[in-house]
Amino acid sequence: MDLKDSIRTIPDFPKEGIIFRDVTTLFKNPAAYKQLIDGLVESLGGKQVDLVVGPEARGFVLGSALAYALNAGFVLARKPGKLPCDTLRHEYALEYGTDALEIHLDAIEPGQKVLVVDDLLATGGTALATIRLVERAGGQVVAARFAIELSDLGGRELLKDYDVEAAVCY
Amino acid sequence: MDLKDSIRTIPDFPKEGIIFRDVTTLFKNPAAYKQLIDGLVESLGGKQVDLVVGPEARGFVLGSALAYALNAGFVLARKPGKLPCDTLRHEYALEYGTDALEIHLDAIEPGQKVLVVDDLLATGGTALATIRLVERAGGQVVAARFAIELSDLGGRELLKDYDVEAAVCY
Repeated sequence: MDLKDSIRTIPDFPKEGIIFRDVTTLFKNPAAYKQLIDGLVESLGGKQVDLVVGPEARGFVLGSALAYALNAGFVLARKPGKLPCDTLRHEYALEYGTDALEIHLDAIEPGQKVLVVDDLLATGGTALATIRLVERAGGQVVAARFAIELSDLGGRELLKDYDVEAAVCY
Repeated sequence: MDLKDSIRTIPDFPKEGIIFRDVTTLFKNPAAYKQLIDGLVESLGGKQVDLVVGPEARGFVLGSALAYALNAGFVLARKPGKLPCDTLRHEYALEYGTDALEIHLDAIEPGQKVLVVDDLLATGGTALATIRLVERAGGQVVAARFAIELSDLGGRELLKDYDVEAAVCY
């Protein structure tokens, strides 16, 4: 199956001139969803993964299923103030203003091999913030995986020091 | 393994007198995480599940992994304004004020068998809101599953018309 057939395209969302790729229609399709997860597992070529880290909120979807498929643990990278214990925080620039992600201070043991996962690779800002958090916690980022890559937005260049793949590329 | 051993207890969070059960320490433990997912699959006794629906944000974690394990699709129940297409919305009461969840209008086909999943069953308000959305969309709720149940808070009573189980009960 071509996974693009199950991704909905919404023109002019969230504003005129933007073509929005809606991955929820892929997630709700059992065969497409299984093909997505299994394909991303296969793209790792047997690399060891101890933990999967996904940023809030859509990174939780793909990330936790991949963690289960890889027999790894799952770590939540959350918006500030959502985690109940002591955290590491990383702020990063958006087009206008800044955003931040946090992980628990003890979420990652030094040397653990970590896969970073999100639904979408656009500018790469969120993925890089997640990677920086993992590295500050002592984890080793072995790869980053995405459902969709928007290749015009330069995310792959920003993440050029890492093993980066997406299931579908526009 | 007793899954309780991998759930962190945080006294007086978010306020004095509350004992917070932190499931992130279970999610990051590969063996405990696998046991959690596999145990919840087993608790369904082979019931057919076409779709898993999980509420934002922590319901995405358990829900998407369960969807993968069950060869089902995953549907996101999101906070208002987050989904890109036309939605159904359900408002529900909190201790103070109201909250709301949305699913895409076309997320569920009439008659599809749906499993509702969240990390925590407390008062049951979020789970019941998710169930109401599924039913308004024409889905049939075959079960609701949780990582943790706080039995003093009455969620099981609120959901008494449904097949409800949790992996761990306090």
